[in-house]
Amino acid sequence: MAGQDPTLTHLDETGAANMVDVSEKSVTHRTAVARGSVTMRRETLDLIRSGNAKKGDVIGTARIAGILAAKKTHELIPLCHPLMLSKVTVEIEADEALPGLVVTATTKVSGQTGVEMEALTACSLACLTVYDMAKAVDRGMVIGDIRLVEKAGGKSGRWTLDKDGGKGGT
Amino acid sequence: MAGQDPTLTHLDETGAANMVDVSEKSVTHRTAVARGSVTMRRETLDLIRSGNAKKGDVIGTARIAGILAAKKTHELIPLCHPLMLSKVTVEIEADEALPGLVVTATTKVSGQTGVEMEALTACSLACLTVYDMAKAVDRGMVIGDIRLVEKAGGKSGRWTLDKDGGKGGT
Amino acid sequence: MAGQDPTLTHLDETGAANMVDVSEKSVTHRTAVARGSVTMRRETLDLIRSGNAKKGDVIGTARIAGILAAKKTHELIPLCHPLMLSKVTVEIEADEALPGLVVTATTKVSGQTGVEMEALTACSLACLTVYDMAKAVDRGMVIGDIRLVEKAGGKSGRWTLDKDGGKGGT
Amino acid sequence: MAGQDPTLTHLDETGAANMVDVSEKSVTHRTAVARGSVTMRRETLDLIRSGNAKKGDVIGTARIAGILAAKKTHELIPLCHPLMLSKVTVEIEADEALPGLVVTATTKVSGQTGVEMEALTACSLACLTVYDMAKAVDRGMVIGDIRLVEKAGGKSGRWTLDKDGGKGGT
Amino acid sequence: MAGQDPTLTHLDETGAANMVDVSEKSVTHRTAVARGSVTMRRETLDLIRSGNAKKGDVIGTARIAGILAAKKTHELIPLCHPLMLSKVTVEIEADEALPGLVVTATTKVSGQTGVEMEALTACSLACLTVYDMAKAVDRGMVIGDIRLVEKAGGKSGRWTLDKDGGKGGT
Amino acid sequence: MAGQDPTLTHLDETGAANMVDVSEKSVTHRTAVARGSVTMRRETLDLIRSGNAKKGDVIGTARIAGILAAKKTHELIPLCHPLMLSKVTVEIEADEALPGLVVTATTKVSGQTGVEMEALTACSLACLTVYDMAKAVDRGMVIGDIRLVEKAGGKSGRWTLDKDGGKGGT
Repeated sequence: MAGQDPTLTHLDETGAANMVDVSEKSVTHRTAVARGSVTMRRETLDLIRSGNAKKGDVIGTARIAGILAAKKTHELIPLCHPLMLSKVTVEIEADEALPGLVVTATTKVSGQTGVEMEALTACSLACLTVYDMAKAVDRGMVIGDIRLVEKAGGKSGRWTLDKDGGKGGT
Repeated sequence: MAGQDPTLTHLDETGAANMVDVSEKSVTHRTAVARGSVTMRRETLDLIRSGNAKKGDVIGTARIAGILAAKKTHELIPLCHPLMLSKVTVEIEADEALPGLVVTATTKVSGQTGVEMEALTACSLACLTVYDMAKAVDRGMVIGDIRLVEKAGGKSGRWTLDKDGGKGGT
Repeated sequence: MAGQDPTLTHLDETGAANMVDVSEKSVTHRTAVARGSVTMRRETLDLIRSGNAKKGDVIGTARIAGILAAKKTHELIPLCHPLMLSKVTVEIEADEALPGLVVTATTKVSGQTGVEMEALTACSLACLTVYDMAKAVDRGMVIGDIRLVEKAGGKSGRWTLDKDGGKGGT
Repeated sequence: MAGQDPTLTHLDETGAANMVDVSEKSVTHRTAVARGSVTMRRETLDLIRSGNAKKGDVIGTARIAGILAAKKTHELIPLCHPLMLSKVTVEIEADEALPGLVVTATTKVSGQTGVEMEALTACSLACLTVYDMAKAVDRGMVIGDIRLVEKAGGKSGRWTLDKDGGKGGT
Repeated sequence: MAGQDPTLTHLDETGAANMVDVSEKSVTHRTAVARGSVTMRRETLDLIRSGNAKKGDVIGTARIAGILAAKKTHELIPLCHPLMLSKVTVEIEADEALPGLVVTATTKVSGQTGVEMEALTACSLACLTVYDMAKAVDRGMVIGDIRLVEKAGGKSGRWTLDKDGGKGGT
Repeated sequence: MAGQDPTLTHLDETGAANMVDVSEKSVTHRTAVARGSVTMRRETLDLIRSGNAKKGDVIGTARIAGILAAKKTHELIPLCHPLMLSKVTVEIEADEALPGLVVTATTKVSGQTGVEMEALTACSLACLTVYDMAKAVDRGMVIGDIRLVEKAGGKSGRWTLDKDGGKGGT
């Protein structure tokens, strides 16, 4: 944690939550990549894929839900700053080993705050949408492993999950 | 999966995604409980708890974010029906073993559709808000194990995670 | 116009706009169907269809945008009542004669107000989304002929465009 | 179509829909003008105008709905970028020849993406609001001819409907 | 305060804020009336009225803002239940004595929770909109005396400000 | 009022309301401070404070509601420009003399328009949330004295309530 601030920046000295002042931060290109997964029964995955073969609507709908959610992040997460995303992509791929779907969201902005929360929010809502569309056949699906994979831009520079030594990142 | 429809109900015969017709479903009391967690470094958990000891704002803010998100579910998940939630609660507790926080969301409605997605969405956004408020000290946190724990009301009656024999539910 | 109220119901006696009181209206099943089109160059239609052949995303995205918009109608149109839609479907089909796409939205509710505006709003936003996704190749596209096609339920019973003798309906 | 990209920019090489990256586009002043109309019975137009003579509320309400909608464009149209509109105006005028109302929306931004969708969305929602407020007397109204009239700023410079040779623009 | 619950109903036994369960409350017709004011310079009031004489837009715009806000109450006030308003009216009148404008909002629902917050929110946003539209000429305006005037329906029956003996109500 | 524009800037020459063009305004750091209060029975204040002593949820929830509302200002107030707030803080303190709570909201942006409306909106929604959470014990609470206290940045420079000679500001 060297180089990181050991306090919770959203709380002031009295412990009250507030949106921190970013007005003195520099405007730089910032990107973030987040990933998560929906683990399901193998039959469920097969059904999504065969449905997808026809019109692609489970994956297509989840992707749109993720993109729209990224743009609403500051409305959903109380202390996030509004920002003007210059790019959002959501990729959803089948993973036989889970079995399930893996969602990867990438966000980009030229601004004063990072876009991690936007990527994580896109990822979460895409997963929730998959759950919604398949829940009639599989209520036991699990959304998991939602984490930041990469972050670039801003004072702290580039960060990747691989190089983070902490427990949370393993 | 006996008694469950083996097709994806949101897709019509051509595979196109649409909001299904629930107008013939009966109006019953329906509840759902969802659970998830944020795994973090032990120091991060300690910091949240000590911050919380002062004013309770990380956990309090995450709880509010979860409740507000439950009410926005139909705006966030494309094919969810709007409904008039009669109750939403979000509980957040420390779990030394993770270490991290465990979020449990309970939703209730008297209506024609279930409230699983509302509980899962509340849970996800509470987790994302915890991440946001602690990310300055711990970027490697992982949001995981978001799943339905219990569901009651409606045609399919009561369902609990424990009694679901499928892989996804283990 | 026999049997219709010859005043603008949203304006009170002083001409001020307000949301009218529907609390004494009966709760009935109400449906509405609206239709509209996006006229474009033939090459644009071909491009959308070939793109659609791959993954279906122009039409799939427009459909989702329409469904989400239906649920936001009361936020977008100032004097519309909030209501709990029990069904929304959006169909989008190619029309060689235009050439272009024809969008048909169907909405359903069990409530005290009609769902025409929800169908018309779904239709409009699906058309706008098509425009957005194809505008890089064809800025001259025209969204048009957005109209109510059918309405059932409520005091005035069933109405269809075909049987409406007025000029607007021809 | 010379000088225009002959592919659908929102779809990637696999056909998946995503919000394109505009971070390398230059920040310029961009404006757009869109126009549309609501065709109605002559008596309906007279009623709106006489109501308007009193308090102006049909037209005034539609104008506000259009302005608010412009600001929500990126929430309504899945792949639109959020942007900070520096100006939105909506003009609504009676047209005896239709008979009906003609809506003209003008939007302006200093940013990296155009504001066509914002103008078209403002125009559409203003038309829908007119429909809502007059539908009790005239269900057969038609919303039509919603199109881009003018666009300036950005790489492609100034574009006007008059100079567009394509079919869609006639 | 006889007959009222002496605890804060939104807090559970541990003090945590949650949306209370209203599922056992009876569905009754409920109405609420709230009032508030914007005090301003006399010249400002004259300017609004003369502007209003032309097109009515300050008052008309504030009225629409109030109506739209009533419908968003459950998104703005964290522990409010969503509900389906059956009526919202906002009246705005000049008061020479203040001098300023007096805003009265009336809301109605058939449901399980009261509509006081919807009336108070409509009132507040109408006042804020007046402030916004006149602030260029009078920054010192004051929004005040926003209070519940009347409430009917539900277990506690009819309540009026006049009959409330408490200090807050004088 | 010397140096201020004696016309209502949101109305054009015909009196129609529109979002004014700010594209030629300079981008400067702008801040605003707004204040308001909720007057209540002494017992109500005591109850909030004792509840607050446990978990802080009335005040904590109101603060979050205020912060979220600031970010929604342009959706709530029709002619406000969207902007990217760089800071929002909401402080809530007990005032024995009222008795009640005093809410102070501070907003900051680097942009082309002022942030007064964002501060006033944050303040209003924090007050409404306090009302909501305490209304079960005190329906007679009054929200009042919502006013701008300070404004800095932009063409008109620094303004404080104390130095405003007008009636509205006393």
